[in-house]
Amino acid sequence: MDRLEKIFDFILEADKEKFIKRQTYVSDGSRMENDAEHAWHAALMAMLLGGFAKKGTDIAKVVAMLLVHDIVEIDAGDTYAYDEQAKQSKLEREQKCAARLFSVLPEDIGARVRNLWNEFEEAKTQESEFAHVMDNLQPMMLNAATGGRSWDEHGVHIDQILKRNEHTKEYAPELWQYAVEHFLRPNMEKGMIKTDKR
Amino acid sequence: MDRLEKIFDFILEADKEKFIKRQTYVSDGSRMENDAEHAWHAALMAMLLGGFAKKGTDIAKVVAMLLVHDIVEIDAGDTYAYDEQAKQSKLEREQKCAARLFSVLPEDIGARVRNLWNEFEEAKTQESEFAHVMDNLQPMMLNAATGGRSWDEHGVHIDQILKRNEHTKEYAPELWQYAVEHFLRPNMEKGMIKTDKR
Repeated sequence: MDRLEKIFDFILEADKEKFIKRQTYVSDGSRMENDAEHAWHAALMAMLLGGFAKKGTDIAKVVAMLLVHDIVEIDAGDTYAYDEQAKQSKLEREQKCAARLFSVLPEDIGARVRNLWNEFEEAKTQESEFAHVMDNLQPMMLNAATGGRSWDEHGVHIDQILKRNEHTKEYAPELWQYAVEHFLRPNMEKGMIKTDKR
Repeated sequence: MDRLEKIFDFILEADKEKFIKRQTYVSDGSRMENDAEHAWHAALMAMLLGGFAKKGTDIAKVVAMLLVHDIVEIDAGDTYAYDEQAKQSKLEREQKCAARLFSVLPEDIGARVRNLWNEFEEAKTQESEFAHVMDNLQPMMLNAATGGRSWDEHGVHIDQILKRNEHTKEYAPELWQYAVEHFLRPNMEKGMIKTDKR
């Protein structure tokens, strides 16, 4: 029972992911998406797009990773992908939350979740690389579906997107080609993503 | 590319789950939860509580099932668990949405997702039964965390909860015992769940 109490304490604490706002609009443009919605959407994408991952990628592990990948933002908040200043303190803020949060769980389960989160952060395995592809493509798709508004509001340059997606091409070349043609190029042409020489 | 276009059409369509409101308050009581948040939370619970499922339950399948279990509510809307009138038309409304939605996907993936959804609805396998346990316990936990308000507002009687959870005891006896002690009994004592003889 003590074990169950710890797990349910964590499950209730995890509910706070629903209060963490991201910088992506949901598809009707009415409001920003939150972390819980994003995690669900990215995990669903992994289920559906698993056939485009490198051979041998364990999709069930990718899904599990995506379900917990943003949980440390409960204390640390969402760090916008292109906010270079906030990104400098991101690791420290997130490590602090991880230490607090994962110790709520029974030791064995806490270690398992922490390992999944670490694997995602380190991005050295096929599974974590494919999880990052999902994590990057999900907002890209929504930004395109909402007319590129979020990119425009943040003054995002195509070079920033390309840098963030350096590995996408390697780990999911067909997905990357699709994203360039359907999500990025139309918004570069419309001027919603900056393309000026810097 | 045609294949990818179909998958991304579905992924964008699925975004509408974020607009389907449930009858459960999120943990700070500020608003109702939506279907996407609920699916994420229930899938996360399956990951963490898998050790309490019957031996041999495929938890990765439970997680996949929970990620799509409410997707037909995009057209059909959320049917409150204790709204007996709405429940009569639920199956028909959801079947109609399933037919539309799953045919957006490439045939093989559409069939896989439809099978997962059917398996959940039929509730005959260990995986689908455990998925239902998660689907039922998630709002129960949140209702308890928000002072039993949702039960009270809907005038829910303990007999309705017991009937809905007939299988919970069989498929996850320890979870059921925990739920009775921590979520149900305190709210019966406070009068937030009705207990009068009927």
